[in-house]
Amino acid sequence: MTSHETACLLNAGDRDAHVTLQVFFRDREPAGPYRVVVPARRTLHLRFNDLADPEPIPRDTDYASVLESDVPIVVQHTRLDSRQAENALMTTIAFAER
Amino acid sequence: MTSHETACLLNAGDRDAHVTLQVFFRDREPAGPYRVVVPARRTLHLRFNDLADPEPIPRDTDYASVLESDVPIVVQHTRLDSRQAENALMTTIAFAER
Amino acid sequence: MTSHETACLLNAGDRDAHVTLQVFFRDREPAGPYRVVVPARRTLHLRFNDLADPEPIPRDTDYASVLESDVPIVVQHTRLDSRQAENALMTTIAFAER
Amino acid sequence: MTSHETACLLNAGDRDAHVTLQVFFRDREPAGPYRVVVPARRTLHLRFNDLADPEPIPRDTDYASVLESDVPIVVQHTRLDSRQAENALMTTIAFAER
Repeated sequence: MTSHETACLLNAGDRDAHVTLQVFFRDREPAGPYRVVVPARRTLHLRFNDLADPEPIPRDTDYASVLESDVPIVVQHTRLDSRQAENALMTTIAFAER
Repeated sequence: MTSHETACLLNAGDRDAHVTLQVFFRDREPAGPYRVVVPARRTLHLRFNDLADPEPIPRDTDYASVLESDVPIVVQHTRLDSRQAENALMTTIAFAER
Repeated sequence: MTSHETACLLNAGDRDAHVTLQVFFRDREPAGPYRVVVPARRTLHLRFNDLADPEPIPRDTDYASVLESDVPIVVQHTRLDSRQAENALMTTIAFAER
Repeated sequence: MTSHETACLLNAGDRDAHVTLQVFFRDREPAGPYRVVVPARRTLHLRFNDLADPEPIPRDTDYASVLESDVPIVVQHTRLDSRQAENALMTTIAFAER
């Protein structure tokens, strides 16, 4: 099982959410912005390894991500790899985005 | 061990909590509302696989849930399956419900 | 390895924290209050199985807990048993206590 | 695999973050302050075992940590040892620091 990170995005509202994702690294400028749309009343399962535009996210590199949405969404971030159990956290800051 | 998701609901207050649950999917309209009551000063262990009315929740499908309560409750959501360790998060938004 | 739950309490302030703990169940009145003191600038590792006064916490029973403190503290709650990975969450409500 | 704790610090802003870390114990005064800088638009992976100045953090001892930053940062704290899965939590208090 290869490592991968995913973010589960929930848009419980009645308007589509336009989400911008930036990825931050230790030793270079951030990658992105990546853009996804979460339709109204839908979830979206985002796999970071699938991000390609404007560039793929480097493998085997620590990174952090910031998501901004034009309507309130809920983001749950999960990391899964072969050595570790998974992290789960609700990025409460997502609620504060404009 | 089959996969299952549970939510532990805590009503630490002195009035019964009437809770409404909606389940969101990637590619269809939300399911629900499901309704449960958490009595005053009690916990309730909700298994998503046990939800039947108005419809069972599909197996092997990613979903997200939103709970609303008429009094403040605490919700801890846990996912357990055979491939993954479990997720734990406290849905702090529950405190904000009316 | 037997199951156990622990709470790690951090008092980063300069006054001792007097903490009251109540434990909630599915089908009976809450147990407690249990009382512990977290000295100023100290941590305390609380094992729920060690709680004895006013009564031990039943084994093999689901429960939830609420902690109140007279000064701000941080509480991290951990559950460990032989079937599951552990849960970790920071009960942010602890910051809101008087 | 030896036990270790790490904190992933994210500075998504445009100014360097000067971070002060204090470590709290059960039975002695806190250690620190330790100081690290998280450059603008960068992440930093902090290994507690690597902290040396003003003193190393004792091994095999429970501790808790408090981080303060002069600009808003996000902190994700992870513990990994050979007996347990890992804890993940986002210390939302980090957002409240001045």
